[in-house]
Amino acid sequence: MGKAKIEMKKIEDNKMRNITFHKRKRGFLKKAIELSELCGKQMIIFIWDKEKNKLVHYQSNPDFNLK
Amino acid sequence: MGKAKIEMKKIEDNKMRNITFHKRKRGFLKKAIELSELCGKQMIIFIWDKEKNKLVHYQSNPDFNLK
Repeated sequence: MGKAKIEMKKIEDNKMRNITFHKRKRGFLKKAIELSELCGKQMIIFIWDKEKNKLVHYQSNPDFNLK
Repeated sequence: MGKAKIEMKKIEDNKMRNITFHKRKRGFLKKAIELSELCGKQMIIFIWDKEKNKLVHYQSNPDFNLK
């Protein structure tokens, strides 16, 4: 299967959207970890799933405090 | 040029580290925007550059409030 250009709008189909989210979330968090480790940057990421009321949280460094 | 496996540790060379950071940051934020748009998720990202005391901030949705 080749690459198809996909339109950048919310995926309407619930099941497809969940699958896309879980796949992309994985790759995205991998990229985040790589970025923070390679470049020595501190990162905080929040992804909020409004429908399920679930929060995904990644923090590269335990002592990164926004205050 | 093929793909070479790189070790996941902080890049020692200052210039190389900055280049890597800017390249990866771009791709990373693109992925973030795509993830939030495709899946209808709300996201907040902070990347803190300690050396330059600069904060990169991305927020998918203006009314995403952590409180």
